Amino acid sequence: MARIVQKFGGTSVADLDRIRSAAGRVKRAHDAGDRIAVVVSAMAGATNQLDLWTRSIARLHDAREYDVVVSSGEQVSVGLMALALQDIGVAARSWLGWQVPIRTDGMHGRARITRIDAAEIGRRMDSGEVAVVAGFQGLGPRNRVTTLGRGGSDATAVALASALGAERCDIFTDVDGVYTSDPRIVAKARKLDRISYEEMLEMASLGAKVLQTRAVEIAMRHRVTVQVLSSFSDAPGTLLVDEDEIVEKDIVSGIAYSRDEAKVTLTRIADRPGVAASIFGPLADSGINVDMIVQASSHDGRFTDLTFTVGRTELARALEVLAGRKADLGYDELLSDPSVVKVSVIGVGMRTHAGVAQKMFQTLSKRGINIQVISTSEIKISVLIAEEYTELALRSLHSAYGLDAE
Amino acid sequence: MARIVQKFGGTSVADLDRIRSAAGRVKRAHDAGDRIAVVVSAMAGATNQLDLWTRSIARLHDAREYDVVVSSGEQVSVGLMALALQDIGVAARSWLGWQVPIRTDGMHGRARITRIDAAEIGRRMDSGEVAVVAGFQGLGPRNRVTTLGRGGSDATAVALASALGAERCDIFTDVDGVYTSDPRIVAKARKLDRISYEEMLEMASLGAKVLQTRAVEIAMRHRVTVQVLSSFSDAPGTLLVDEDEIVEKDIVSGIAYSRDEAKVTLTRIADRPGVAASIFGPLADSGINVDMIVQASSHDGRFTDLTFTVGRTELARALEVLAGRKADLGYDELLSDPSVVKVSVIGVGMRTHAGVAQKMFQTLSKRGINIQVISTSEIKISVLIAEEYTELALRSLHSAYGLDAE
Repeated sequence: MARIVQKFGGTSVADLDRIRSAAGRVKRAHDAGDRIAVVVSAMAGATNQLDLWTRSIARLHDAREYDVVVSSGEQVSVGLMALALQDIGVAARSWLGWQVPIRTDGMHGRARITRIDAAEIGRRMDSGEVAVVAGFQGLGPRNRVTTLGRGGSDATAVALASALGAERCDIFTDVDGVYTSDPRIVAKARKLDRISYEEMLEMASLGAKVLQTRAVEIAMRHRVTVQVLSSFSDAPGTLLVDEDEIVEKDIVSGIAYSRDEAKVTLTRIADRPGVAASIFGPLADSGINVDMIVQASSHDGRFTDLTFTVGRTELARALEVLAGRKADLGYDELLSDPSVVKVSVIGVGMRTHAGVAQKMFQTLSKRGINIQVISTSEIKISVLIAEEYTELALRSLHSAYGLDAE
Repeated sequence: MARIVQKFGGTSVADLDRIRSAAGRVKRAHDAGDRIAVVVSAMAGATNQLDLWTRSIARLHDAREYDVVVSSGEQVSVGLMALALQDIGVAARSWLGWQVPIRTDGMHGRARITRIDAAEIGRRMDSGEVAVVAGFQGLGPRNRVTTLGRGGSDATAVALASALGAERCDIFTDVDGVYTSDPRIVAKARKLDRISYEEMLEMASLGAKVLQTRAVEIAMRHRVTVQVLSSFSDAPGTLLVDEDEIVEKDIVSGIAYSRDEAKVTLTRIADRPGVAASIFGPLADSGINVDMIVQASSHDGRFTDLTFTVGRTELARALEVLAGRKADLGYDELLSDPSVVKVSVIGVGMRTHAGVAQKMFQTLSKRGINIQVISTSEIKISVLIAEEYTELALRSLHSAYGLDAE
């Protein structure tokens, strides 16, 4: 009998009825003979309430105490899920992070899982008991509670599946799989049956909100087969698998976008070695991540313009840092634009197919969409364009790469 | 510098403002040089909500999972209290039951504390850090979370004070001390400066809701000095101390009452050895506690009436058990009356003073109040009367024993 991990997110356990419904789904898999571990998030809204309380009670922020408070949300949902399972005749017990234990490093509020000792849980699963494991929380150094950061329950589920040698990790969520693009914008978007880890990783980090980047990283590193599927339907979802397991690869698997970017331009900076470091060093010191970077070709061999993107919520802080160092950096103007969107074309097929970038540039150009910044990796091409073109760009590219549903 | 335990109940940490206010009180004691451990309950209402969820999600009741869910309430309040203390410049950290650890037996839902290892907490307190300890929860056998039952946080506080060798355990609550009687009924009730453990124990078990019986038992067994006082004023409260520490003892310290009783009478039962056992055995088997018992003198040497009290919420079940065994028990009629109240006069002075009972009977008789059942112990006399006389009886007795405030 196979070991399966099933993970239910906050909306899937938002109230008692939904917990009962999720329990029914666990029971069906259990009755079919599989050995089930269930990972649950806090009931939707609970973590936000707890988070708000910790921020309201103190100006200071002791992440260790924050973790004590917010991890209580998952404690409630594992207990309720275990009771709901027992009520329909399924042997079940809850496991808190410290009981498993799920060991993490000491980075409170965004800890990383270092080791899961799943031997006892595995034994009990094999004897027919469903293990209900609290997502998002772990046991850090010095016996203290840690949390894994937003979306940490996905990471818990995938890491637990790896530790258990599970056949599959099912992530139940409020969408029914991974789509070629956002179906709210691209009506012809198709659900993918399979996607490679690498592609999913790019999609997640480029704005597709189906699965957290960290969970995908863990799945990829430990070769865990992950399925993303809806907790509100019985349709099969999307399988995350190794690239080799996808026989017929599309050249492009999906078109993602992110509105979280803002553009910054410094004009007429000196075109000499070290100038980039003198700009990006202070930003990094302030904890501001820089994403896309383009340096215009030099006007006259002495001066150039530098354009880059930062997170939109960090724009004000980035501008403050740069304005404060105007004398050092010696730029002419400091320009910014928050009304931009990053559109990305993703596909492992790019590795073996030429012309993918060319098609993107042509498609956008034909629609009169100006590309402001470009960045590429082995399996994706991202461009920064004006936000008003988001929908037009997504739909055009979706058609151009032959992704439209029949 | 003395070690002090301060315990704040649910109403004292009901919202963020009250948590801040309680934190301010901790800070004043801390700044005065004392070493403070704070024990907190869940925010008022939180435990009821969690309790309701566990009862709604399942017909079955796995007390182990119940404990996982309801103990999360204290987890929230310790984290918030630690943050509130840090915010006003007091070094503080939270301690969950399993972190201390506060070891208990395996009676989930009503576990008893078996051992507290307070060495580490004591060391940190002595270094100036306030320990914020979750009340109500513990670590049971096989690494599982237990809870101590209603009012368990008082027990946590007193047991922790004992383990720490604390000079005093302050129980902050929504009343400002222990009164000679219920001030809502007896306007002339006085706050007691001191009361002996034995008297407090009788008062608690006889209906005074200031402090849980179990906390008083622990305090008495380990000679912990406990102070009950208001979290909303700065007035001194009532000290629970050893009888020897009370120099001027009143003969009677207080008048308590309990409306939780119901009366049952079996008429014309056989007056022979073993009949009481045949009645009370089945009740005990059904988990029904019998309190006061009186057997009328035999009519003719063959038959008698038996009257006793049970908890009012258990009356229906008690009647069901007795009705089902009518043939065995051979009674004539099964009568019951839920409209009764138990009024008790309590005082260690009774040990050395005669006439206390006589004064009680005379006082009630003078007011035309009929005594239905009597029971006594070394330091209390309880009578069962019709509920409608509750206020009259309390006020008359309060005056008769000279307890009225000037």
